[in-house]
Amino acid sequence: MGRVTVRRPVRTLSATGARRRPDSLAAEEPLEIRVGGKALAVTMRTPGHDVELAHGFLLSEGVIGAPEDVYAARYCDGVDDQGRNTYNVLDLTLAEGVAPPETGVERNFYTTSSCGVCGKAALDAVKLKTRFPPGAAGFSVTPEVLSALPDALRERQRVFASTGGLHAAGLFRADGSLLAVREDVGRHNAVDKVLGWALLEHRVPLGEVGLLVSGRASFELVQKAAMAGIPLLAAVSAPSSLAVELAEENGMTLIGFLRGSSMNLYTGEQRVLEAAAAS
Amino acid sequence: MGRVTVRRPVRTLSATGARRRPDSLAAEEPLEIRVGGKALAVTMRTPGHDVELAHGFLLSEGVIGAPEDVYAARYCDGVDDQGRNTYNVLDLTLAEGVAPPETGVERNFYTTSSCGVCGKAALDAVKLKTRFPPGAAGFSVTPEVLSALPDALRERQRVFASTGGLHAAGLFRADGSLLAVREDVGRHNAVDKVLGWALLEHRVPLGEVGLLVSGRASFELVQKAAMAGIPLLAAVSAPSSLAVELAEENGMTLIGFLRGSSMNLYTGEQRVLEAAAAS
Repeated sequence: MGRVTVRRPVRTLSATGARRRPDSLAAEEPLEIRVGGKALAVTMRTPGHDVELAHGFLLSEGVIGAPEDVYAARYCDGVDDQGRNTYNVLDLTLAEGVAPPETGVERNFYTTSSCGVCGKAALDAVKLKTRFPPGAAGFSVTPEVLSALPDALRERQRVFASTGGLHAAGLFRADGSLLAVREDVGRHNAVDKVLGWALLEHRVPLGEVGLLVSGRASFELVQKAAMAGIPLLAAVSAPSSLAVELAEENGMTLIGFLRGSSMNLYTGEQRVLEAAAAS
Repeated sequence: MGRVTVRRPVRTLSATGARRRPDSLAAEEPLEIRVGGKALAVTMRTPGHDVELAHGFLLSEGVIGAPEDVYAARYCDGVDDQGRNTYNVLDLTLAEGVAPPETGVERNFYTTSSCGVCGKAALDAVKLKTRFPPGAAGFSVTPEVLSALPDALRERQRVFASTGGLHAAGLFRADGSLLAVREDVGRHNAVDKVLGWALLEHRVPLGEVGLLVSGRASFELVQKAAMAGIPLLAAVSAPSSLAVELAEENGMTLIGFLRGSSMNLYTGEQRVLEAAAAS
């Protein structure tokens, strides 16, 4: 377990001909997250920082809000066909008084009727679960700080540099310094890992921190930021419609297409301090 | 429902100043897939081609193998708070004799012990479910055909062109012609949509067809191709370790980093017909 990259031979074709060479691949393995012995989710993730991942996942789902809400986390002692522990099943025991999560595929939707799954229901479900409303946070940054973030994140992506195959998420302060960066084959997992790190460091709610993601901003990534109390999410690529709606509803700042000195402000633009001359 | 893009005002900052303009966003809405009235999955998808999506999903899960396996598909009549049908819950009735899917988060893992979730178990689960082993397919293509595919796919991505926020999947013949292209905010959904299209067109198993995806190649995308009998998967970005293992185990061809005239052949390179001079 724990291998973040895997070496494989590969045949590369290019304009200058064909050659065989060793290649590094981003490792992908299933992780089953259990709560109190009961399976809650299986995610395909890059091994490493699994305890953070599980904490971040439970924070995002509204199950926990502080490190004390988890009494214990342990890998189950399952073994593969060669007798080695797979380290792919993590069982969390919640502290006394912490309600276990609902299971079932509809758990993230507050279904108001027998067929009431819709974007509005998804937005409402997040509102119901939010412990740390991010809207009131006074956090703000300059466009110059934002513009420098993607390169800073990329420099910290050690595994991406060798594989080209990993998403990253980073928490940053108003001065642009990165608090923590995590990588994963799954973009949700990368976010869960940084949020879990912050929770375990007693830094949640993250009212004075922004979240940067290397890809697009989906509803679920905005949800994760909202559940951690993060007032600003910046994405290198495009947001979806529901991501923008959720950010707006929660008073968050959502930035997309953050590339070079260019960026799109979708919501909460008061947190981006443009120089007076620029507007 | 059915809106593929959503218009929103956005503030764009760039080296030449700031301006406010209307922007198009890729629509994202939850879709609940039910089988026989029972919730199987909720996916965040771009509305449209939902019936194809559900068919492709059930094909990928090993539940169905032919269009006749589904007796009926209908939207439930749930309404939002303004009385409009949400078109976000699709209920499929299986034909007589078709076993309903298992639900539960572990359904895709053949758990050999109480804690046996691991990459090997995931590989075994696919092998158990495969109806149309892709390994024997004689399909082959030239590097020139492969090199032209990403541009051809991009030209068909009408929604991406306006939003920059959608993944695409395309089925192509050996001569490079595209059979079908689908877009979605979720890359799994884009693949499910093209596979569902093919199933409904009675074209599954797809032994004479390749699958092109606009992003990376994960385990789950290789699984979907394998379940449809597709012998070749080409991805614009990197594959994961488990994606390569699954392709190898199923005798499939896996190509990554397909960019310009350059590409990496990870498995099944006999299906890529290099000119004699190039090797």
